[in-house]
Amino acid sequence: MVDIDALSKQVSAKARRGGGREARRHSRARAVPSFPTLERRIPVYEIVPDEAIELIHDASCKILEEIGIDFRDDEAAGLWKAAGADVDGYRVRIDRALLMELVARVPAEFTLNARNPERTVRVGGNNAIFVPMYGAPYVRDLDNRRRYGSLQDLNNFHKLAYMTPALHSSSSIICEPMEISVPKRHLHIIHSALTFSDKPFMGIVTSRERAEDVIKMAGLVFGEDFVKDNPVLVAITNCNSPLVWDATMLDAMKVYARHNQPVILAPFALCGASTAASSVGAVAQVNAEALAGVAFTQLIRPGSPQLYGQFMVTVDMKSGAPMGGTPEAAQMMYLMGALARKYKLPWRTSGFHVGSKLNDAQAGYEANMLMHAAILSGANYIWHVAGWLEAGLVAGYSKFVTDAEQLVGWYKYAQGVSFDDFTEAMAAIREVGPQGHFLGTQHTLEHFESAFFMPTLMDFNSFEQWSAEGARDHDTRGREKARAMLAAYEAPPMDEGIAESLADFIARRERELPDSVS
Amino acid sequence: MVDIDALSKQVSAKARRGGGREARRHSRARAVPSFPTLERRIPVYEIVPDEAIELIHDASCKILEEIGIDFRDDEAAGLWKAAGADVDGYRVRIDRALLMELVARVPAEFTLNARNPERTVRVGGNNAIFVPMYGAPYVRDLDNRRRYGSLQDLNNFHKLAYMTPALHSSSSIICEPMEISVPKRHLHIIHSALTFSDKPFMGIVTSRERAEDVIKMAGLVFGEDFVKDNPVLVAITNCNSPLVWDATMLDAMKVYARHNQPVILAPFALCGASTAASSVGAVAQVNAEALAGVAFTQLIRPGSPQLYGQFMVTVDMKSGAPMGGTPEAAQMMYLMGALARKYKLPWRTSGFHVGSKLNDAQAGYEANMLMHAAILSGANYIWHVAGWLEAGLVAGYSKFVTDAEQLVGWYKYAQGVSFDDFTEAMAAIREVGPQGHFLGTQHTLEHFESAFFMPTLMDFNSFEQWSAEGARDHDTRGREKARAMLAAYEAPPMDEGIAESLADFIARRERELPDSVS
Repeated sequence: MVDIDALSKQVSAKARRGGGREARRHSRARAVPSFPTLERRIPVYEIVPDEAIELIHDASCKILEEIGIDFRDDEAAGLWKAAGADVDGYRVRIDRALLMELVARVPAEFTLNARNPERTVRVGGNNAIFVPMYGAPYVRDLDNRRRYGSLQDLNNFHKLAYMTPALHSSSSIICEPMEISVPKRHLHIIHSALTFSDKPFMGIVTSRERAEDVIKMAGLVFGEDFVKDNPVLVAITNCNSPLVWDATMLDAMKVYARHNQPVILAPFALCGASTAASSVGAVAQVNAEALAGVAFTQLIRPGSPQLYGQFMVTVDMKSGAPMGGTPEAAQMMYLMGALARKYKLPWRTSGFHVGSKLNDAQAGYEANMLMHAAILSGANYIWHVAGWLEAGLVAGYSKFVTDAEQLVGWYKYAQGVSFDDFTEAMAAIREVGPQGHFLGTQHTLEHFESAFFMPTLMDFNSFEQWSAEGARDHDTRGREKARAMLAAYEAPPMDEGIAESLADFIARRERELPDSVS
Repeated sequence: MVDIDALSKQVSAKARRGGGREARRHSRARAVPSFPTLERRIPVYEIVPDEAIELIHDASCKILEEIGIDFRDDEAAGLWKAAGADVDGYRVRIDRALLMELVARVPAEFTLNARNPERTVRVGGNNAIFVPMYGAPYVRDLDNRRRYGSLQDLNNFHKLAYMTPALHSSSSIICEPMEISVPKRHLHIIHSALTFSDKPFMGIVTSRERAEDVIKMAGLVFGEDFVKDNPVLVAITNCNSPLVWDATMLDAMKVYARHNQPVILAPFALCGASTAASSVGAVAQVNAEALAGVAFTQLIRPGSPQLYGQFMVTVDMKSGAPMGGTPEAAQMMYLMGALARKYKLPWRTSGFHVGSKLNDAQAGYEANMLMHAAILSGANYIWHVAGWLEAGLVAGYSKFVTDAEQLVGWYKYAQGVSFDDFTEAMAAIREVGPQGHFLGTQHTLEHFESAFFMPTLMDFNSFEQWSAEGARDHDTRGREKARAMLAAYEAPPMDEGIAESLADFIARRERELPDSVS
């Protein structure tokens, strides 16, 4: 078992030391710790019996066989036709034999390489990774102001991702660097993810050309040949629910799949709006959409690693906005997990994704309801687990470090109940007997730190102590911690030649690309 | 299935209407809605295999057989001796055959009667109830100040409990009415619970005499004969971990058990201090303590309904204070649930119990991590699910109504995934097809409200709307909601003769009892 507490303490101590040349010299010797792949040692939770899962599977197959799904791209439609599907324009009807044959080509697990090999992780089966959020135009900053994200913010979030031991990835667009023009933005996003952190990262999917730039930048860091076959990033492509894969998404999907880079095929469903107002109805539809996407990648590159999954939330009747932390979101996660296991596919879900505008009580209730389901449903790629506020519109600094600490607890949780020292614990009970206490026993001294998760951002001091320290709420403590971590940040080393080649590539592409979308 | 949303809306509408004579006259006609017993329709989560549970059971039996447990009361020790236990002074060693024979006498389920028969609930098996917190000396009030609790506060909390459809009980000492002298306090606590609400309530256990007063007051409301045999309240007795049942607790336990009133035998364990620093070690000890307590009640009154269970939290190394929302607290809950099922005992756990001082992000993260485990572990008496802050030292108004709304979601969650309208949902998908939307379909119009949980205290409005409404955080919204609910409160009816007899009883006992503890 990973010594989580020792690892975590290194990070906390580092953050506490703060900036200053002396402090930096002192800490240069040690690398920032990082948890290895989370190997689950707890059972999954099955919320319905197998027969119910078969019922949903059958309904999904009927959707693809009878209604069909649009692949709005000529090449895609052609590939489907050649594979034997019933194709009418862009409408593709796929029978279940073909569908399952293609889905079966996807490996149950894959290795996701990091530029620092110590951060390389495994995804699928019993292996899970935690990935920070993606896609926010806004940030909630260190002064609790909501404003557009900037490149400086994005750099900061990549620094925090690097310094958070329980995060296995740096994501990519944690927030949008809004001051950079859209045609050039992807270059700076990927550069930030690749340089301020050394963990696996995520691709860009807004066009074929941008996806190709990402592959080229990855090639400069990992070697062009390596990137042809070995996963170094994960890209997200969304189905337009209901039942449309559009040309932009398919373009990006093709680029990544051809390079054996895993794509997430996990429809972003606003249940009640882009699906029926029924949890099982929504799951049947999203499953059909995800399976069709997964199957399509196998027409591009058979055997390429892919991620099945979902982002399913219900919508608020008043505002139409996605909600977090609802019972149905949790239940649908369990259903999708059961389907993923049936298909033997690595799968993605989300945790800690909330509708709350602030890192307040609403955020906490929403976040941990969903994360519990993400852990027990056996997901492999647990995304949006740092920073997410306001249905993904906002990346919050305080929320990021709050989530970061919670992840340590969830990592521990998923490692299961330890019976390793049961005999010694029983001996301690015998030693203490009625009306004693255990604080001084040898067993306690030896096991206390490893036995129990000890968060430090959460405050369990006495009321008097807490008041003396300023009676700060959790959000305030989170912003202070984020500030301290950033002050203590030191970049992971990168070969100078690689750094130069990235800079050259970006400079060239900046010259070639237009300043605005025509 | 209960129409949760319709019930909830009645309450919200009532709270929104606020005070005013007109409003009160208008709403007098309708009773405050209340959810029936929660009948679970989801499977339990088993975190370890049966063999691991047997290992813990065996360890617990060895604790009681070899170390023994203290029953520090002559009558109790005598009863154990007569039953065949090995008794040495107050140290009682119980072999597993005797233990299991006594435990087997406890009914797997029981009916808990309310003074309003519509609020009567069932506890045990697949039946669960939600019960607000108990025991806080302080409140965090409607202005977010932390101060001593008063009788006015307690009345307020009983009003809120009455108005919260998902709460099945009014508890009793939600906060301590600190201005009332200790010898007389129990009279006013029980009077408040019995009059400001009409739901089942909880007993007082600080002395034999006070427990007897509670039984007498219950007799005035339910009829003396009825209370001799039928559960109308639940009392909590705590083992002094490790391994001591003290005279005060045993005195109260005897009073309640003789009247067939259920007692909770659920040690309050600060894991690492009053147990070994080991989750399984702690569970083995607490299980031994709880089973010994349960068994003892069956020496008092065989067949009396009782509640097995636990309150197990880990302690913060810095402050020694109990923590909420830790992975180990959740894991220990699952283990205790599995043991309860093995023994076929109704069992109690807690949800929403947090260490946070404020109703902030920390509170939310802590609360919903534990509640998820409380629901999936199959607990029957889910306690401390409204109001709990600061490890139980504080009852918070905002936290109370926050929890109250969350309970609606958890109630829905535990009712499972509905396949009832699957065929109609599939027809809606066929009707909408690719690139449509579901908002206007007949299925959506008919099912939207019942399909998805729609919290209203949580805010999912647009950022602009939320800003226009004052950019209030969740805690602020909670306090405002509590204030509005209290303004709209109307007491449940009570027979005038009963009300008078309660007042007379209290007046008499106030004359008889001293003003301070001698």
